Amino acid sequence: MDITVAVDAMGGDHGTHVTVPAALRFLRDNPDVNIVLVGLEDAIAAELKAHHAVTHPRLRIHAATEVVTMDESPQSAMKNKKDSSMRVAINLVKSGEANACVSAGNTGALMATARFVLKTIPGIDRPAIAKLMPTMKGQTAMLDLGANVDSTPLQLTQFAIMGSAMFAALKHVNAPTVGLLNIGSEDIKGNEAVKEAAEMIRKTRLNFHGNVEGNDIYRGTVDVVACDGFTGNVALKVSEGLVKMIATFLKEEFNRNWFTKFVALLAMPLLKRFKSRLDPDRFNGASFLGLRGIVVKSHGGANKNAFYWALAQAVEEARSGMIQRITEQVEQELLHLNAVVESTVN
Amino acid sequence: MDITVAVDAMGGDHGTHVTVPAALRFLRDNPDVNIVLVGLEDAIAAELKAHHAVTHPRLRIHAATEVVTMDESPQSAMKNKKDSSMRVAINLVKSGEANACVSAGNTGALMATARFVLKTIPGIDRPAIAKLMPTMKGQTAMLDLGANVDSTPLQLTQFAIMGSAMFAALKHVNAPTVGLLNIGSEDIKGNEAVKEAAEMIRKTRLNFHGNVEGNDIYRGTVDVVACDGFTGNVALKVSEGLVKMIATFLKEEFNRNWFTKFVALLAMPLLKRFKSRLDPDRFNGASFLGLRGIVVKSHGGANKNAFYWALAQAVEEARSGMIQRITEQVEQELLHLNAVVESTVN
Repeated sequence: MDITVAVDAMGGDHGTHVTVPAALRFLRDNPDVNIVLVGLEDAIAAELKAHHAVTHPRLRIHAATEVVTMDESPQSAMKNKKDSSMRVAINLVKSGEANACVSAGNTGALMATARFVLKTIPGIDRPAIAKLMPTMKGQTAMLDLGANVDSTPLQLTQFAIMGSAMFAALKHVNAPTVGLLNIGSEDIKGNEAVKEAAEMIRKTRLNFHGNVEGNDIYRGTVDVVACDGFTGNVALKVSEGLVKMIATFLKEEFNRNWFTKFVALLAMPLLKRFKSRLDPDRFNGASFLGLRGIVVKSHGGANKNAFYWALAQAVEEARSGMIQRITEQVEQELLHLNAVVESTVN
Repeated sequence: MDITVAVDAMGGDHGTHVTVPAALRFLRDNPDVNIVLVGLEDAIAAELKAHHAVTHPRLRIHAATEVVTMDESPQSAMKNKKDSSMRVAINLVKSGEANACVSAGNTGALMATARFVLKTIPGIDRPAIAKLMPTMKGQTAMLDLGANVDSTPLQLTQFAIMGSAMFAALKHVNAPTVGLLNIGSEDIKGNEAVKEAAEMIRKTRLNFHGNVEGNDIYRGTVDVVACDGFTGNVALKVSEGLVKMIATFLKEEFNRNWFTKFVALLAMPLLKRFKSRLDPDRFNGASFLGLRGIVVKSHGGANKNAFYWALAQAVEEARSGMIQRITEQVEQELLHLNAVVESTVN
């Protein structure tokens, strides 16, 4: 199946300088993908020219006359920029002209616009931000990573269901194991919202492992980790900061003197392989789950390589039928949950 | 000044096999420290004998006939084990026979017992768990790391004050910078508790930097990071898990073939230096702040080296006059805060 991706060409710290070359490379590597570059025509055309590229049936430009800035409020973006590259890219998903869209723009504006244009899946109160994280055993889907600051037990349950459906679709796993992030593995641990959520998730037909702790994420204890957006965002950013610190320390030790520099030369291939296993670029794309369409958010500061991987994430989601799987599973599990609750009440 | 440390010799996964040899080494390295080993006399005597050591004026045994197990509930420990090694060690701090105590035992039981025996400092609702974390610039004190699952704005403010006093005492810094952990640096970000806490901390005379994000911890943006215990605990355990994963990946790459193994040999000294900068053993001791006495919690699974560093943490806190500094600063800031609030109301 041919997949068409709408790219917000203006989004991110570097705009077209990153999005256009990443799109060009992605098209070369993926002959069954079409890309629509959305944004200011002149800027896109200039960047294409700089790469000696031209439009063709698989690479189109779709004009949008406005750009949402990185520090603009979601309200302002929604109200004043109806022809922004971000919004038009999402419109293309809504109209079916594209199977997915990718933006490195302002997260808050992207989420608000995506919700407004695409609407949420029936049964979902609030979308969540999900990401596949590298672990000792493979990958783990984690959500919410910051779309919501407070989460009710029902919302945490919705995250668990959506994460399970996402992992099942992307990784071809039948019943992914689901963990609820907590500060202890015992049932009595945690705050009220988490305790109630655990009870609720236990009533679904998800493959619920129970509570997991922070160290279980990278241990790969479960396939899916559900948590509130505040904790998830902190966990993600703590990880980014720690990886940066460790990389800096390692670099400093290899740069200490002529002998360590010599060792660094010998170690180069193995260090490269080591780096690729943790590479933040490789894990760049974050998915907005709970919408009636695929929206992948790239890091604002992403380079070409990182943006390339966000495109890959969007294509994989489109190919896997992820949205349909989430929609069905949310409906089934919420119906089941209501039935369980009613049978308990009666 | 001579410092006396009461050691819960029975605590932790390995009990006397770790606590006793760690204490022996610590005494050799620190001639102005006395240690009281608290616990089952026979077990302690046997372990001393195994190390060809005897008691002397600087190394005493204080008998306690019970042991709190690692999975015992705080309630059960408090009610049924009044002569536990943990409780007797804390009693020695209370009576002034020891300047600090260290335990690798059950965290919940240790916190409940310490609160009951030592009481909290005037003005402190709930103690917090604090730790010095390694950063790109040095160290940052972070709290709460899991003593509380929900925190009110006032409690977050108390954490900020206690963390500031701790850092000032231990690091000889006059006005440490304080950050509030949030999911964005702007004032409008975060949940209600965090937003209100930011307003409250701004009214104290702390050197308040404002909101910080997860990646700021290891970047060393501020000297003190205040957060609720749920988020702090997740951040700490995510870090532990990530360090373990990275170490495993690095080891695997160095073990890949004969050439990488040869490179590993050459790289050994630099890898050792690298490891020492992140060494979880070195950062083992967590401090219970807000009590009228020093209680340091060692990781339950700590080895001798890690327990040694928990002892060092306790001695440093006792030497620095940390408790007095915290007590004074809490009193002054809370009085100041009340004055500000009253002048605003009138």
